[in-house]
Amino acid sequence: RAERVAHFEQDVWSIFTPLALECQAVNLGQGFMNFPPPDFVVEAAREAVLRNDCNQYSHPKGRPRLRNALAKSYSPLFERTLDPENEIVVTAGANEGIFSIFAGYLDQGSEVILMEPFFDQYISNITMNGGVPVYCPIRPKGDISKDMSASEWKIDIKELESKITPRSKIIVLNTPHNPIGKVFSREELTEIGALAAKHNLLIISDEVYDRLYFDPKNHQRIATLDGFWERTITVGSGGKTFGTTGWRVGWLIGPKTLLEPALAAHTRVVFCVNSPLQEAIAVGFEQADERGFFGSQISAYEHKREKLLSVFRKLGLPCTVPEGSYFILVNTDKIQVPADYEFPALLHSRPKDFRTCYWLTKEIGVCAIPPTEFYSKPNQKLAENFARFAFCKTDETLDAAAERLSKLS
Amino acid sequence: RAERVAHFEQDVWSIFTPLALECQAVNLGQGFMNFPPPDFVVEAAREAVLRNDCNQYSHPKGRPRLRNALAKSYSPLFERTLDPENEIVVTAGANEGIFSIFAGYLDQGSEVILMEPFFDQYISNITMNGGVPVYCPIRPKGDISKDMSASEWKIDIKELESKITPRSKIIVLNTPHNPIGKVFSREELTEIGALAAKHNLLIISDEVYDRLYFDPKNHQRIATLDGFWERTITVGSGGKTFGTTGWRVGWLIGPKTLLEPALAAHTRVVFCVNSPLQEAIAVGFEQADERGFFGSQISAYEHKREKLLSVFRKLGLPCTVPEGSYFILVNTDKIQVPADYEFPALLHSRPKDFRTCYWLTKEIGVCAIPPTEFYSKPNQKLAENFARFAFCKTDETLDAAAERLSKLS
Ligand SMILES: CSCCC(=O)C(=O)O
Ligand SMILES: CSCCC(=O)C(=O)O
Repeated sequence: RAERVAHFEQDVWSIFTPLALECQAVNLGQGFMNFPPPDFVVEAAREAVLRNDCNQYSHPKGRPRLRNALAKSYSPLFERTLDPENEIVVTAGANEGIFSIFAGYLDQGSEVILMEPFFDQYISNITMNGGVPVYCPIRPKGDISKDMSASEWKIDIKELESKITPRSKIIVLNTPHNPIGKVFSREELTEIGALAAKHNLLIISDEVYDRLYFDPKNHQRIATLDGFWERTITVGSGGKTFGTTGWRVGWLIGPKTLLEPALAAHTRVVFCVNSPLQEAIAVGFEQADERGFFGSQISAYEHKREKLLSVFRKLGLPCTVPEGSYFILVNTDKIQVPADYEFPALLHSRPKDFRTCYWLTKEIGVCAIPPTEFYSKPNQKLAENFARFAFCKTDETLDAAAERLSKLS
Repeated sequence: RAERVAHFEQDVWSIFTPLALECQAVNLGQGFMNFPPPDFVVEAAREAVLRNDCNQYSHPKGRPRLRNALAKSYSPLFERTLDPENEIVVTAGANEGIFSIFAGYLDQGSEVILMEPFFDQYISNITMNGGVPVYCPIRPKGDISKDMSASEWKIDIKELESKITPRSKIIVLNTPHNPIGKVFSREELTEIGALAAKHNLLIISDEVYDRLYFDPKNHQRIATLDGFWERTITVGSGGKTFGTTGWRVGWLIGPKTLLEPALAAHTRVVFCVNSPLQEAIAVGFEQADERGFFGSQISAYEHKREKLLSVFRKLGLPCTVPEGSYFILVNTDKIQVPADYEFPALLHSRPKDFRTCYWLTKEIGVCAIPPTEFYSKPNQKLAENFARFAFCKTDETLDAAAERLSKLS
C-alpha cells in the first residue's frame, strides 16, 4: 500500500449511501437526483448508442460535438468567444477533472489554498499528487441560532492572504458552494482574484452548480472579471447540470496554456470520457435554451428549497438558506440523540455530527451528511452541530422526509 | 506544469487517429471497432437510461449487478467462486484501473517490471505515481523475414530475474499481448509467477483481450495457477469484450486485500464509473453464454485475422501471426518510403516507424501504428522495422485496406 493512500479513512459517501439503503431511510444525503433526467437528454443517449461512432474511443479532449456545444452555451456566460479546440477539455466527471488539474500542476510540497468547508474529495486529489492543502475558514457571521442567508458565511481576505507562502501554487474557489450554498459576490471574487494575481496563483473555480442558483443578479464567474481569465480553470459538471450524476461527464474551461498540463494528465489517467453520454450532454446543451430548460430547472429547485426549508422552520431548526446548489446546512443543536444510544464501532472515532446523522438515518429514517467531512481535523468542531440535507429529490420524497422528521418535534 | 507531466510527448493515438481522419485513410491504427456492439448490449444501454437508478452515482466498487455478472462469468474461468462484494472493482476503463493500482501501490522510486514491448500508457501511469519502469525484452526468436507465430516472441526468464531489485514492487504481464498478439503459455506463466513469488512482487495481469484468442488450449490465466491468485490483480475490459471501447467500463479481479489500495485510489480519482453503461455490460455478461456470444465473436475475429494476414502474404510482407488480440505486427523492411519524402516537423525526432506509418497513412491511405511507441527509448531500434495493423474492423474496411495496400507491390 502506497504512502499516498495509507491514511485514507472510509469516505462519507460509502458510509451513508449504503446505510440509507439498508435502513430504507429517505435519502437526503449524497447529492444525487431521484427523478429522471430531462426526456430530451435521455432520448439523445438512447440514440447515441445506435450510432457506431458514439460507441468507440473519443478524443482525449472530448468529442467535438460536446466541445462545440459547451463553447456555444458558455461563451455568452464567459463574455468571450470560447475556442472549442483549445479552451475546453471534457473529463470523466468534474472529480477526475480536478484530480487531473492537480496531477498536472502539483509537485511534492506544492500548497493548495482551500476555503473551509470544502468538497471532501479535494483533499485526496491534492495529497495523492504530492500537494499540501492549506485551509482558510469561511465563517458564519450571522446568528447561527436563527435562519441565515448563505451569504453571511464569509472569508476574511486578510486571513486568506496570510495562508499564502512561496510554495502556494493554486487556490480553489467553489461557487455556488457545497455544502454552504453560498454564491460568492462580485466583490468577494474580485478580492480573491486580486490575491491570486498578486501571488501568481492558478485559480480552480469549481462551478459544478453553476446552473443552480436562485438570484441571477448575484451569480458571477471569476473568469469573467478583469484579468482573471488568464489564471483560471473553471470546472463544470454534466451531472449537476442535467440531473445525471451517474454519467460521469464534466469539463474544464480555460486558456489553452492553462489546460495543457491538465489535459496531459487526464489523457494518461482515463484516456478519454465515455462517448455516448458525452453525445447526450452535447444535445442537452444544444437544446437547453430553446426549451427554456435551465430556467425551469431553477424554478423547480427553488420550490424544493422552500419545501425543505419550511420543514426545518416548523421544527424550529435554524437553516443556512442556500443561494445556490441543492444543499441546506441545518443547525442540529436542538436535536436530542439519546445519551446511551449505541453506535457502530466505525463511528466511535468520528465527530459528533457523524453520530447525529447516523441516528437520524437509522431512528428517524432520514439520511443527512455530516459536514465535518468537509473540514480539516483541527476545525471540525465548527461543524459538529450541523447536518447537510439535499433537496435534489422528488416532492414526494421531500414530503416523506417532512413526515418522518416531524417525530423530532 | 508539474514534473510528473513535464516530459510527456504527444501520445501516438492523438497523432494517428486524427491524421487518419484528415487523410480519409482506412484506419487500421488505434484498436477500436468500426462495427456496432452486439444488439443485446446496445438495447440494454437504451433501457438503462430509462431507469432512474441507472442515471445517478454508482458505488465506487461498481454496480452490484455488474459485479454479480462478472463473478458469475469469471468464476469458472478463475476456477474459484469469486466474491462480488470484495474481489471485483469496476473501473473507468482498464486504463484507469491500472492507473489506480499504481496509485495504490507505488511510492517514490518503487520499480515496476515491464515486458517490452508494453502498452504505452503503462509508462505514464507508473511515472505519474512516482514509480520507475524497468524493462525486460520479449524477443522474436524465429526468423523475422518470414511469417512467424506470436509464440516465437519470448522472454528469457534469467534476464527477467536480473531486472529485479530490492525496490521492485510489481511485475506487469499482458496476455493476450498488445502489440505482439502472444498468448503466454502455461509454462511461461508458471516461471513468471514463481519469480514474482520468490521476490514477493504483486502481479498485474492485463488480460483485456481475454475473450479474443484463437487456440482455446493455449489460453491460461496466471491467477489460476497454483499459489498465484494471492498475488495477482487481473485487469479486464468491457470495451474489448463487447466492442464498446468508448464506454469506459473495465474491472479488476483479485483478493480483497490486494484490491483495497487500488479501490482507495480509484474512489478518489474518478469516484465511480458511469452507471448506465455498467448496467449494459452486466446484461452483456448475463446473456453472453446463452447466446454463444464469445464463441461467435472469436470466429468472426479469426476470419478477420486470416483476411488481413492474406493481404500481407500477397505483398510478401512477413507477419507475426497473433494467438490473441486483434493486432498484427508486420515487418516493413521491404516497404520503400521515398528518401526525399517530406515529413512534418512533429515526426523529425521520432523513430523510423513513425515515418513509415505516416507515409502509409498519407500516401497509401491505410493507417497503422508505429510499435516503437511501445518501447523504451534505448530499445526502439528493435521495432523500427515493424508496423502494427488492427483487424477489429468490418470486412469491407479490411477489403478496402487490401485494395489500397496492393499499391505497395
Ligand atoms: C462523490 S459523491 C458527492 C456527491 C456530491 O456532490 C455531494 O453530495 O456533495
Ligand atoms: C488508449 S487507446 C489504445 C487503444 C488500444 O488498445 C490500442 O490500439 O492499442
